[in-house]
Amino acid sequence: MEKFTVTQRERIGELNGTTERMELEFETIEDRDRSFREMETSMVKESRAKIRTLLHEKHVTGTVETGRKLEQWLTGEGFTKVETPTIITKKMLAQMTIDEGHKLNDQVFWLDSKKCLRPMLAPNLYVVMRELKRMTNEPVKIFEIGSCFRKESQGAQHMNEFTMLNCVELAYVEDGQQLEELKRLAHAAMAQLGVPKEEYRLVVEESVVYGSTVDIEINGLEVASGSYGPHFLDSQWGVFDTWVGIGFGIERLTMALSGSKTIKRYGKSISFIDGQPLNI
Amino acid sequence: MEKFTVTQRERIGELNGTTERMELEFETIEDRDRSFREMETSMVKESRAKIRTLLHEKHVTGTVETGRKLEQWLTGEGFTKVETPTIITKKMLAQMTIDEGHKLNDQVFWLDSKKCLRPMLAPNLYVVMRELKRMTNEPVKIFEIGSCFRKESQGAQHMNEFTMLNCVELAYVEDGQQLEELKRLAHAAMAQLGVPKEEYRLVVEESVVYGSTVDIEINGLEVASGSYGPHFLDSQWGVFDTWVGIGFGIERLTMALSGSKTIKRYGKSISFIDGQPLNI
Repeated sequence: MEKFTVTQRERIGELNGTTERMELEFETIEDRDRSFREMETSMVKESRAKIRTLLHEKHVTGTVETGRKLEQWLTGEGFTKVETPTIITKKMLAQMTIDEGHKLNDQVFWLDSKKCLRPMLAPNLYVVMRELKRMTNEPVKIFEIGSCFRKESQGAQHMNEFTMLNCVELAYVEDGQQLEELKRLAHAAMAQLGVPKEEYRLVVEESVVYGSTVDIEINGLEVASGSYGPHFLDSQWGVFDTWVGIGFGIERLTMALSGSKTIKRYGKSISFIDGQPLNI
Repeated sequence: MEKFTVTQRERIGELNGTTERMELEFETIEDRDRSFREMETSMVKESRAKIRTLLHEKHVTGTVETGRKLEQWLTGEGFTKVETPTIITKKMLAQMTIDEGHKLNDQVFWLDSKKCLRPMLAPNLYVVMRELKRMTNEPVKIFEIGSCFRKESQGAQHMNEFTMLNCVELAYVEDGQQLEELKRLAHAAMAQLGVPKEEYRLVVEESVVYGSTVDIEINGLEVASGSYGPHFLDSQWGVFDTWVGIGFGIERLTMALSGSKTIKRYGKSISFIDGQPLNI
């Protein structure tokens, strides 16, 4: 029996072909190559049709749509959208306890000895929520959506640049109510995105030292992670109220909603658009 | 006559006070200090009221709103929103002729010898529009809104990180019609933002070598710059059709619409929100 060549398999993968397709077997080389040509032609046609639909009708990609749906939901919940800098200081990283020895430290992109690209939104949001609370003396509900950067293995589920949406409520719930509120927000987010209850689950992990977390998993893939305070980092940031926050990985969410397995198709890219390859 | 001290003037500036206020003169030091305290109290109150309105009612800053209005207009015009990487290669910069000797070269943030933060959106958009045109064999209308990075003098009208919105139409108008189309887009953008005709002007500069440009100025401040092709850079990118594009500086536009003079108030920040200082 004849299997696809490495080049043929790569091309099938590029065109969104399934693993099952790649593993097909054929009686003869001629059969295999004819089948490959037919498969390629029909997959190219399908990708082009999807891109035409994007350009003629949709005008926004699935990734943009995921972010917008969450923004609409949060605005409806009374959250305010903030926008903070991509470039942060070494000092801010250290206040997140990210320094030599921390597992994230090697993944940080440095611009010089004191400035780097943010690997997460939390440091900036700590400052903004603290200042807004101090100034207004009222509970604060804010969110940000923006790029974060980590040197990754560039595997199928990681990217150097990815889009995070973090929402946080400060001084909004009584101490003891945080976990319940976190679950409410997680379920509301999934409802907003139209994910049926049977397709996701909340994974609660309780840690006395590092605080408890609630992850959202869609078909086994972690797409969001929530936590709450009082948290061991809070004193570094001058935060002393309860808080509840969730961070969503926008590309991961979009990939999970699309039933795809390669995140790069849904990220900021000049090789893919809306899940389809551009080099076809 | 007594004038405000340096510290008092700085504080007045921080609180959005006008130059006229800073230049006030008083009979005695006591008069001056009493006037300063009254002024400070009322300006702090005003800023806090504006921030409360943002958090309770508006939920989006003026800067976010400017971007959204332009996005809505462009989507209505049939443009598709794309999202491309913040990190680009040295090779792509060189294809924009940005290398040693180019005035922009010293302003580039480098991550290593081959990768940098994009100082503009154009290189990525050249690739994406070319590939979409090749694949669909149809005119292409796309836009991107996202951060660009330049090491600036950090003056009142510049920032290290700023938000650009670039829209481009490829193979959409006949050769000879580009300037007219560019003006149509510029006027439509201003109409969408509610800028009256008497408050902006289009500045056309024609250059045989570098291509002609159309800048949009609001009260003398350049807020957008348009250009078109065939352009001397096109062959580097394998682009051979007519194109028309405009790049909007979102913070500059928002500053101009607000009648303010300090761009940092409207940018991605942990010190300002929606034009107001956070440290009050």
